[in-house]
Formats: sequence, structure tokens, C-alpha cells
Amino acid sequence: MGPILERISSPEDLKKLNFSEVVALARELREYIITVASQNGGHLAPSLGVIELTLALHLVFEAPKDKIIWDVGHQAYAHKILTGRKKQFKTLRTFGGISGFPKREESPYDSFGVGHSSTSISAALGMALARDLKGENYEVVAVIGDGALTGGMAFEALNHAGHLKTNLIVVVNDNEMSIAKNVGALSSYLSRIRTDPKYSKGKDELEALIKKIPHIGPTMVKVGERLKDSFKYLLVPGMIFEELGFTYLGPIDGHNIKEMTEVLRRAKTYDGPVVIHVITKKGKGYLLAEENPDGFHGVGKFYVSTGEPVEAPKVSFTEVFGKALVELSESRRDVVAITAAMPTGTGLNYFARHFPDRFYDVGIAEQHAVTMAAGMACEGLKPVVAIYSTFLQRSFDQIIHDVCLQNLPVVFAIDRAGIVGEDGPTHHGIFDLSYLRLIPNLTLMVPRNEDMLRKMLYTALNYPGPIALRYPRGAAVGVKLTPYEEIPIGTGEVLKEGRDGFIVGVGRPLNYALKAAQRLENEGISLGVIDARFVKPLDEKLLEEIGRLKKPVITVEENVLAGGFGSAVNELFQAKGLESRVINLGIADEFPPQGKVEEVLNLYGLTEEKIYLKLQEIFSKR
Amino acid sequence: MGPILERISSPEDLKKLNFSEVVALARELREYIITVASQNGGHLAPSLGVIELTLALHLVFEAPKDKIIWDVGHQAYAHKILTGRKKQFKTLRTFGGISGFPKREESPYDSFGVGHSSTSISAALGMALARDLKGENYEVVAVIGDGALTGGMAFEALNHAGHLKTNLIVVVNDNEMSIAKNVGALSSYLSRIRTDPKYSKGKDELEALIKKIPHIGPTMVKVGERLKDSFKYLLVPGMIFEELGFTYLGPIDGHNIKEMTEVLRRAKTYDGPVVIHVITKKGKGYLLAEENPDGFHGVGKFYVSTGEPVEAPKVSFTEVFGKALVELSESRRDVVAITAAMPTGTGLNYFARHFPDRFYDVGIAEQHAVTMAAGMACEGLKPVVAIYSTFLQRSFDQIIHDVCLQNLPVVFAIDRAGIVGEDGPTHHGIFDLSYLRLIPNLTLMVPRNEDMLRKMLYTALNYPGPIALRYPRGAAVGVKLTPYEEIPIGTGEVLKEGRDGFIVGVGRPLNYALKAAQRLENEGISLGVIDARFVKPLDEKLLEEIGRLKKPVITVEENVLAGGFGSAVNELFQAKGLESRVINLGIADEFPPQGKVEEVLNLYGLTEEKIYLKLQEIFSKR
Repeated sequence: MGPILERISSPEDLKKLNFSEVVALARELREYIITVASQNGGHLAPSLGVIELTLALHLVFEAPKDKIIWDVGHQAYAHKILTGRKKQFKTLRTFGGISGFPKREESPYDSFGVGHSSTSISAALGMALARDLKGENYEVVAVIGDGALTGGMAFEALNHAGHLKTNLIVVVNDNEMSIAKNVGALSSYLSRIRTDPKYSKGKDELEALIKKIPHIGPTMVKVGERLKDSFKYLLVPGMIFEELGFTYLGPIDGHNIKEMTEVLRRAKTYDGPVVIHVITKKGKGYLLAEENPDGFHGVGKFYVSTGEPVEAPKVSFTEVFGKALVELSESRRDVVAITAAMPTGTGLNYFARHFPDRFYDVGIAEQHAVTMAAGMACEGLKPVVAIYSTFLQRSFDQIIHDVCLQNLPVVFAIDRAGIVGEDGPTHHGIFDLSYLRLIPNLTLMVPRNEDMLRKMLYTALNYPGPIALRYPRGAAVGVKLTPYEEIPIGTGEVLKEGRDGFIVGVGRPLNYALKAAQRLENEGISLGVIDARFVKPLDEKLLEEIGRLKKPVITVEENVLAGGFGSAVNELFQAKGLESRVINLGIADEFPPQGKVEEVLNLYGLTEEKIYLKLQEIFSKR
Repeated sequence: MGPILERISSPEDLKKLNFSEVVALARELREYIITVASQNGGHLAPSLGVIELTLALHLVFEAPKDKIIWDVGHQAYAHKILTGRKKQFKTLRTFGGISGFPKREESPYDSFGVGHSSTSISAALGMALARDLKGENYEVVAVIGDGALTGGMAFEALNHAGHLKTNLIVVVNDNEMSIAKNVGALSSYLSRIRTDPKYSKGKDELEALIKKIPHIGPTMVKVGERLKDSFKYLLVPGMIFEELGFTYLGPIDGHNIKEMTEVLRRAKTYDGPVVIHVITKKGKGYLLAEENPDGFHGVGKFYVSTGEPVEAPKVSFTEVFGKALVELSESRRDVVAITAAMPTGTGLNYFARHFPDRFYDVGIAEQHAVTMAAGMACEGLKPVVAIYSTFLQRSFDQIIHDVCLQNLPVVFAIDRAGIVGEDGPTHHGIFDLSYLRLIPNLTLMVPRNEDMLRKMLYTALNYPGPIALRYPRGAAVGVKLTPYEEIPIGTGEVLKEGRDGFIVGVGRPLNYALKAAQRLENEGISLGVIDARFVKPLDEKLLEEIGRLKKPVITVEENVLAGGFGSAVNELFQAKGLESRVINLGIADEFPPQGKVEEVLNLYGLTEEKIYLKLQEIFSKR
């Protein structure tokens, strides 16, 4: 930790520094963030890009009285360090440590908890309206990336804020990136502003030119008003924002602290909502990240000198999915692939490279992604929509209303399902089995390993209705890959025979359960193990068979218990009048914390050891 | 049916008419639609507003080869009549009859099924991309209201379409209304265009003025480009659309068929996406509806001559909610109310009238509504978010991520829960108990009648965390209203004692179950009846008590069985090792059809008679 940073315990201390100390502090913050991220992993490039912006914000505003809301929040590392958490920052993203995202329970400076994209303007508007209604007096500032602006709810909020004319500052942090390179017409628009003559050189010439335009007479008042708007358009690059009722300031250099503090101070003096357009460089100050901002968006442990990861990456479910989709799409011209701003994270980068004309990155726009897929399916294409489990929550209504109600053959490839680890509660994908199982017409599969994932993908591409497969983040199980093969819909697979009871499960923890059952075999407890494979439809025949044996049935899943796979088994047993004792293992009714995947699974009894102990407890009693 | 309409069986027939016949046909369509809507109920004002637009579309395009996608779809009555369904139109919205919304299984002319708002541009873009990929050649046209444009996913789609430059026509049907008067900055923007000099008078004067602007020299090229854009802004009112990559045409008179057919033909000749801005009058041609378009948006049976409803409206759950909220908010300055474009439908019109400064209509923007409420709750307000069950699906992620993860005290007042009747599968609110029950920290209540609704609202306003209550569309039960009273969280109520078994249920069908149990009492079958009141948390103590009696337990709910209330009871019984036989009554795993509420409930065994028969079957066997 640098000598100036040593002296900073709160934004108050920051205000005591002279300008050159502030500049030096920016350097120290960079060093510290790079060091911690290289050890703990984290969202490096986004946080490096906004260090000067963070300093400017805390110099101008009086947090926590003034509210600063970071959209997504993975860029808030400097904010955390400057607001009383510089020592704890070393515990970033660890079990029991501080969160990689702003979190209300962590600090009063984190005025709104974030993780998912595009929420900041809505939250900020809510706070600003509360302030006005209660007659209080403080500033509310939302900091949102140009990527997050592609999310529809950001537009909903802009549209509403512009209508209400509430005092509110929206800082658009424009780095031309989401996680990957940004897409969308609004992004092109912002980039036209960047290269605007006003921003570059021609401002004086422009103003001279305007003076030459003839005087507007009284008969031309209406025309003149429009003309005035037009000149405004000429001078104000952010006319879209102006038309939506915001005052637009910018674009300004997001690494120039002086310029930013000036503009932020000016913004405080305006009535009504203000947009400040700040241009930053993602990964700023760490050359390797500047050159490869996508690669350094989120990192694991790495060597600072080379940028190389400390641990050799293992083959992931993501990678197996991505490559299998390419293989299967060679002979299938109807397959198209859709991502919402996550080409690499979903493994669709392979598909994009092989079939660029069949690949669509829609931006951070999960709702649109799903309904666009529905439209494609209507016209005979086979869309594969690859979205993380937690973000697919955004398109819940579209899955129901646009895909499943119309029974359209869309494939949902749901990555990051289950416990995701260090990203914590905003990112765990633990609800999907429940929120998808309730939807009529949808078939829902869970592979226990990467070989099954390939077969399920193959099955999905051949299936004539809506179908989903969900698989976890990170390393695959490490099994041998076998030829593609269709899995009959709604059939389970017996992995191990047994006589004292049965484990029926899906996905990653089923592997642990199988090992636990094998250990118990040595203790004279013989348990059958079944991979249900389908959460919907269930293998009713197989389940009835074991249900009629009246032995205990233990369900296992990496999903909340409420409404999940085990719940489906319960429902079936009740409907069929089967009287076996059923015991549901899964995630309790709470938001799981951050930590290593094993640490979090351990909390919910879903490791091999915990399952073993639980089974022992159940069966040794008998 | 008028004489010209008699001759029309498909859009082909339409093309054979001369212009004055087309104008006469518009009158005949109006007559027919008013007549049928007055008998069957329906979305009258929206459909009356687009009759000329519908004629123009079918004159210019070759449906079903060309795809016409109606956003929301409640305005598609003329489209239905013109595309081979004029006789069946009399069965509009009835059980087994034709849908009030476009529906793929109903007709090849209905190219995309709709019901929820703001989906059309996404679906249209999907179809257009499929067309291009397959090398086919047809037009794709989305027709979207200015209200539906406030939905974020419409913006996501515009942003993506403008980026891709795909051939696509978006007709913006601007009537300055959603269901109620429109809100939002974009809406004001559209209305500035309406009153633009180009649209009114000053176009020639403007052009003359522009000619006077001095010649741009070679040193000023960059400036000149911007200036060119600026002049475009001067002449092209829809600059926001232009900036997003669309060609903007309009505004044009949406009741002038000639003008529209010309512009639609021109639109076909452009490369890339086109927006056509059409100005219509909601309710056009039926004076009573023109004067009160909100009141005639959706109607029941009414007298055409007076507009009066045939059946005197009964007191509804909605009305009881709306009035109770006003009463309770007199002494509670922290209560604010939020609607997403449904002030009357949700009963918040009463609140809006009494507390206009605490009332927020955010437009069709459910995602923003919920996150804005979260922001308000952070700052000490008590937001009541009133949204229909089916539309709340849009904010599923925001409820999880912004409200419940942060444990913020937002009240969700969920109207239209359960079977809604004639609006059919796109509007039934049958998933909410499942999709809300899975969320940690959320308390979930279901009133069985309007008195309980008032008490639950009172309870919710006093509760320090996220809490929801859901209640059905339409007439309340008709019980006496009693003083407000707090219901202890997670407690059920015994409505009837019994010894042979127990009915445990929530909401409307519980009343039927109670009556059925009373009938069975006379046959010597004695069933206890319990109103669980809380789906989450369950009354574990009470349920354990009855579970230990080992008598059959029948759960009753107006929600899908998958993951619903009954499923929660199953989970509890399994977790506690209770061995009673549990039988879950609820809605099967399918999308229920349209029809009278009783007709649809009957399909799923949820009427008094069906529950009675089911109970008889269960208990007479024993």
C-alpha cells in the first residue's frame, strides 16, 4: 500500500490532499488493486478504468450523505478502498471477506447493492424521489457504463427520470466495452460523439459559422424554435439525452481529474436530471489489461509481470459446450447462436469464429435475446440462447410468454448454474430449476458431467419444442468424451443399483452423492443412485418403480429446495400416492454467500463428505 | 355485417376494392367491432384506432408471406376480421372461441402470438434475420404503440436492429396513450414531433431559410458533416430514431388510408430499418370511446347507444385494495404507490387522486418500477408496487436482486392473480406463487376474500421486509369489511374443524372448498378447513399438528401445481417426516385457455362442485 493511501481512511481525508497527491494516489490505488486482484482474482479492467472518476466523485460529493450508485458494481474497487475498507480489501471475494460488488450491509458508502447490470438509474431515481418527498437535500449520482445502457431497464429509467425532471446525475462511463466490445446503435451513437468536432477541434469554427446564420424574424417564431433546437443539436453532442429531458455535459476525459471535478461541480448546479458523458479506458494503467480489456475483465490469480494465470486453466463445461456447438452446427445450417454480451463467458466465441453470420451478440439485453430467438424459431431457425442462469432471470417473462406459450423450438444453454463461487449472492444461479420447472411446455435437462452435456446439447438440437440445459461454472468433471447420442426425453439413468434406498439427483452434486454411496457400500449400506437427467419431464416410470419399494428416496440438486427438482419428485410421489419417505437435499431458503464453490456447497451439505454423513445418518438409524 | 365486408374473405379481396369501397369498409369494420365488443367485451378503443392502419397494411403487404406483428395485439380485431375470421369473430374471447390477441395456432396471418407489451420489434427482428440467413424475400412489419415503446425491451430491440441495419419496418402507432394517458420523456418527444412545424405548416419556410446558410468550404468538412446532420435534425423530426440507425418517416395521419399506403410503399424501398410514425386517435369513430379512451380500452358487455355497462359492476378486489390503500395512507406519509401504466386497473386511481405527490406511473416499465421502489425503500419510504401477476413476471430478476437480496421493505400488490378469464393464456396469473415462493426473504400472502385483503395490506405496510399479496381479478366475495388488524406473519386460520381429513388452501378456491366441506358434513364426512393465508412462511406449527394426525391433507390453490403452495406443503411434510397422504389440487402443467373464469376453473377441478366431487371420491373410498 502506497504512502498516500496509508493516510486515507475516508473520503474526508481525500479532500485534504493537494492535486499532485491526488494524482499520485491514483497510481497507488492502481498498484494496490492490481496486487490484490492478482492474488484473489476479480474484476480488474473495469476497476482500473474508473480510478480517476472515483477520485473525482469522492472529491466533489459528500458520501455517504450524497448517494453514489455504481451500476453492476464490479468497477467499485477504488471506491471500496477509499471508503474505509482499504485493509479488508485484501479479503476481496473470499469466504467471509468483502464483496466484489457494492453491498449495503458492508458499508454505508455502498448506497445500493448491485451485481446485475442496468439497475443504477432506477435505484437513483427512487432515492432522488424519496429525497424530494421528504424535503431532504443531497445529491444522487448513478455511474453507468455504456454497455449497461443497452439494458432496457436503463432506458425505462432514463425515460421516466427525463419525464419527472428530478435532480439526478447520471455519469455515463463510456469505454466502448461491455465485457467484450460493445454492440448496439446507441454505442455507435456514443462513439460518433467521441469523434465529434466539438470534442476534437472544430468548436470555435462551428460557433463562428452559426453566427453567420441570418436573423430570425417574428413570422418565423415556430420555425425558429425548431431551429434553436437544431443549433443545440449542432453544439450539444448528446442530443438523444437532451431529447429525453436530460442536460448533457461532455464528452470529457475520464482520466483527467481536474476536468471531471469541474464538470461534476457544474452538474450539481443544474435543475433537473444531468448526464455526464465520461470517456475512460478499460484496464487503464496496466498495459496488459489496456491491450486486452476483455481478457482482463474478470481474472483468476495471475502473475502481474506477465498477466499469465497462476493455475493452468482446466477444461470447463463452458468450453465443452462451445466446442460441441461448433461441431454440431457444421451440418446444421439452421442453428444460430445468441449471447447477451458474453461471447467468451458462454463459450460462444468458438461458434462466432466459425459461423460469424449465424452469431448474434445483442448487448446486455436478455429480454430481447429471448424474444428475438422466438421470432427466429417461428421462421424455421434453431436458436441456441446462451445466458448465465442468474441473468436469464431477466427474461423470465419472455421465456414463458414468447417461447413456451407458443411452444417454439428454442434451446436455452444455461451456464453458471448453481453456486458460482467468489462472485457471490448476486451471481449464484440457484433458482433456475424452480423458475423454469413451473413453465408448461419446457423440457429441462441437467448434465452431471461434460459428456452428458454434449449429448444433451445434441438432444436439444433435435427436439421440436423449447428445451433448456443448465450446467455449472468452472472445471468439468474430467470424464472421457463419447460420441453424440440422443437421450430419450424424460428418461433417467441408473448409475448404481442398491437395495436399502435410492439417491435421485441431477447435476454436479450427483457425482458427490455417487461417491458417497460407494463409500457406504463398504459399510453394508446399499444405495441405488439414479441420474434423473430431466427435471422436466421426470422419468415417471423409473420413479414409480423405486417409489413402490417404499425405501427412502434422497433427492440431490444444486438449486434452492423451494420448487426445485426434489420438489418435483415430491409432487410426483404425492400425485401417484407413493409412500416412500423422500428427503430433499439442496440449497436452503437464503441467499448463499461468496467463497470458493466447495466452501459454499459445504454450507448446504452438498459436498461428498457432507452427503456421505447425511446418508449415514439416515440409513444407520434404520 | 356490412355489404362490402360480406365480400371480404382474405386480404386478396381487399385489394380488389376501389378507394371509396375501402373507406366504406372502414365504417363497416367499426360497426361490426363495436357490436361484437358490446356483446363479448374486449379491447374496443385500441382496435377502433387502427382500422385505417390495418387496411393500409393489408393493402400494401402480402400477408401471410409478409409478416405483420402486432405489439400487445389487443388492437388486432380488424386484422382478424380481414384475414378469414369474420364469422368466428363473433366468438371473440369466449371459451373455445377466437382469441382477443393474435395467436399463431389460430391463423397463419397471426405471425407472432402476443399479449404482453413491447415484444414486437424483437420478434420482427428475429424473423427478418431468419429471412436474410435463409435467403428469402419478404417484408417484416412490427406495429407498436407509443405506450409499448416505453417498455425497455422495445428499446433493446431498436438498439440492436439499428446496429444490424436489417430490413425491417416499425410502425409506431402514436395515440398518446398506453391504457391511460402516456407518461415518459419519449412520449413527450413524440408529441413535440406531432406539433412540429414540418408536420404543421412551416416546412417551405424552413427550407428557404436553410438555403440562406453560407456555403461550407473545404476546410470545414468535419464541421460540415455535423452541420449536415444538424439540418437533417431540422427537417427530420424523428432524430432519435435516426440516431439509432433507423430511417424515420412521418409523422403521418393514421386515419388517412391514401397517405399511409403511399408511405408504406415507400418504406419497402428503403435499405435498412425504417420507423413510420403514425398518428391515430384511440377509440376513433365511436364518439363515446374517443371522449373516454381509457374507459373504453377494455370493456365488458355494454349498450352501444349509451356506453353504459349491461351488468352493474360489482365491488372488486381491485377497488377494495385501492380504497384501503387510501385509508391507510392518510396517517402514513411514507407510503408511496407505483403503477406500470395501469392506474385504474390496479385501483391506484384512488390513491393518485388523494395523494398525487406520492403516486408514480412509470409507464409500461415493470423492471424499472420494482428497482425504483427498491431505491425508495433504501431511503425510508414504503413503496407499494401494484402490478398484475402476469406482468410482474417482467420484473422477476429485480424482485430477487434489487428487493429481496437487500431485504428491502417493498410491498407488492399483485392483482389479476389466478385465472383471469377472457383475456386467456397470455394474461392468466397462475405462476406467481411458484416464482415468488422460491425467493429468499420474501413473505407471500393470499387473501381468501376482500376483508382479508385489507388486513393483509395493513400487515404488509407494517412489515419491515419484502412482502407480497396476490388476489384475483373481478368481483370480491361479498363479505363484510371489518376493522384493520395485523395478521401474525406465517399463521394460518382454522375455518372449520374436522376429523376425517384436512383441506389447507389459499385464495379464491378455498371458499369453494369450504362450501364443499360443509356439504360433505351432511354426508358424514368431516373435514377440517384451514386458510394457510401465508404461502411463505408456512404455518409450520399448525401444519405439523394436522400432519401428525395422519389423515389425508388436500391442498387447494389457484396456481400451477409445479412449485406452488401445495408443493410448499409437500416440502414441509417431507422435511418434517410427516406421513400424511397429501393431495395437491391446482392448475395442471399447461397454459389454460380463455373463457369465463368458472369455465376455466372447471377444467382444473377448482369449482365448488368439482372440489366437492373430488373430496367425495377421496373420502368415500376410505
